[in-house]
Amino acid sequence: MELIDGKKVSDTVKQEITQKVTEIINNGGKRPHLAAILVGNDGGSITYVNHKVKACEQIGFTSTLQKYEDTVSEEELLAKIAEFNANNDIDGFIVQLPLPKHINEQKIIEAIDPTKDVDGFHPVNVGKMVIGLPCFKSATPAGIIKLLSFYNIETSGKKCVVIGRSNIVGKPMSVLLSQKGYPGDCTVTVCHSRTQNLAEECAQADIVIAALGSPEFVTKDMVKNGAVVIDVGTTRVPSDKTKSGWKLKGDVKFDEVSPKCSYITPVPGGVGPMTIVSLLQNTLDAAANK
Amino acid sequence: MELIDGKKVSDTVKQEITQKVTEIINNGGKRPHLAAILVGNDGGSITYVNHKVKACEQIGFTSTLQKYEDTVSEEELLAKIAEFNANNDIDGFIVQLPLPKHINEQKIIEAIDPTKDVDGFHPVNVGKMVIGLPCFKSATPAGIIKLLSFYNIETSGKKCVVIGRSNIVGKPMSVLLSQKGYPGDCTVTVCHSRTQNLAEECAQADIVIAALGSPEFVTKDMVKNGAVVIDVGTTRVPSDKTKSGWKLKGDVKFDEVSPKCSYITPVPGGVGPMTIVSLLQNTLDAAANK
Repeated sequence: MELIDGKKVSDTVKQEITQKVTEIINNGGKRPHLAAILVGNDGGSITYVNHKVKACEQIGFTSTLQKYEDTVSEEELLAKIAEFNANNDIDGFIVQLPLPKHINEQKIIEAIDPTKDVDGFHPVNVGKMVIGLPCFKSATPAGIIKLLSFYNIETSGKKCVVIGRSNIVGKPMSVLLSQKGYPGDCTVTVCHSRTQNLAEECAQADIVIAALGSPEFVTKDMVKNGAVVIDVGTTRVPSDKTKSGWKLKGDVKFDEVSPKCSYITPVPGGVGPMTIVSLLQNTLDAAANK
Repeated sequence: MELIDGKKVSDTVKQEITQKVTEIINNGGKRPHLAAILVGNDGGSITYVNHKVKACEQIGFTSTLQKYEDTVSEEELLAKIAEFNANNDIDGFIVQLPLPKHINEQKIIEAIDPTKDVDGFHPVNVGKMVIGLPCFKSATPAGIIKLLSFYNIETSGKKCVVIGRSNIVGKPMSVLLSQKGYPGDCTVTVCHSRTQNLAEECAQADIVIAALGSPEFVTKDMVKNGAVVIDVGTTRVPSDKTKSGWKLKGDVKFDEVSPKCSYITPVPGGVGPMTIVSLLQNTLDAAANK
């Protein structure tokens, strides 16, 4: 069993991006600039955004963090998005989700200029991804693809089961893995809450992508010997062993599943770190495409 | 075994649309208007476009057919698209594919105003379809969805195998059938040229969507008893029994497969007629959304 070290891969990619930023600056170019809009005081959202800002500093990007109280109006957010769209110094920006209920999330997403939509959530980018055109790919699926290729994991003709059909992970993951080329050419099955015999489906898979958000859902009887298991779950569960009072749990029961795997991602330290570097990579691409 | 009669369903839908057009006119509204751009002299393309124009006449739509020689420049086509985009009388329009090699097909598709893109090929519509937002769905997948619901075929929790991963059928079909709700909630597997054990995968399916374009590919050993088989194939094969010298062949070996099925679509007369009515339905929706 080999552990897929997301921290190591993300550090490698960050070094590559840092190198490219240095080249851009040495050639008289502009520092790539990622902006983020954060609404409210959700602990998870604040942590994610802070990680993103910190990562920008590490690799030499400019970053802007625009915070709002959760009472902010939709109009105010849309005005800020219009401002970021028009601001030539900003190469890409994100609006950290989820947003308060009084704000139409989809309207916010669609207000972002697709050429600056480095989260890859705009319908244009989702559509281009499905069609197989150049686009900003959603960060988590793009990160998983990078992990598979970094470890030279064979995908062509492999049976892949994606558990979960969310717009930000399950659906794009299934599309990317079934597309022509590497990493891709998998025979992909998407499983979800209505799937019958999910354990049986899963047990046939060469590659399992667990992205349902249910801690320790995938058990050893659901995984065949030698499978590659990618755990996208990051549920906060109470813990008396951490200062914060919680810890992250994946969708896979790691202790019992990992001995059966050829490769497996841990939680934390697997897919998580890749999500941020995909966002940075998208921002670098956005800057290059201008 | 029940034959899914695409002709009958399409006639029913056409009658419903005709009724709605009459209501629109009686209420002082404008006749829905579908325009088509046809380039070159490909026999198949001419036939398809003529069918579309004829269907418009049948149901009371206005139609416009703009023909070009296959020497037309990309600029000329783009200018016509801009004109159609700006023409308030035209509710929806299509550019019949394929286009000659000197024209960038994707550029043409993306030039169409997404609100008039009744073929549902624009990335915005593809993306919205994947996200589950209101959009113009690609005509063939939308037609298949309509067939399943017309015959009240159960889909929730069913195992569905889609053979083929094309942008206009395989991919959207897999997305629509795995989405929440009816017809949907299937456990969908996408099979393609790189799939190992395709016959075995297929033989496990409650619903088979054959969309690979290979005549009589699906044989009886690949289909389980009681399966629903939807045949999207329409390959022209030589025939000495028709005046034209060819006939349409599906992807399914109908004679031997049909006795095993609970439902099956014939070729011709199954999915084919539905494609055009989906286009008409999209045009009606485009007119209503203005």
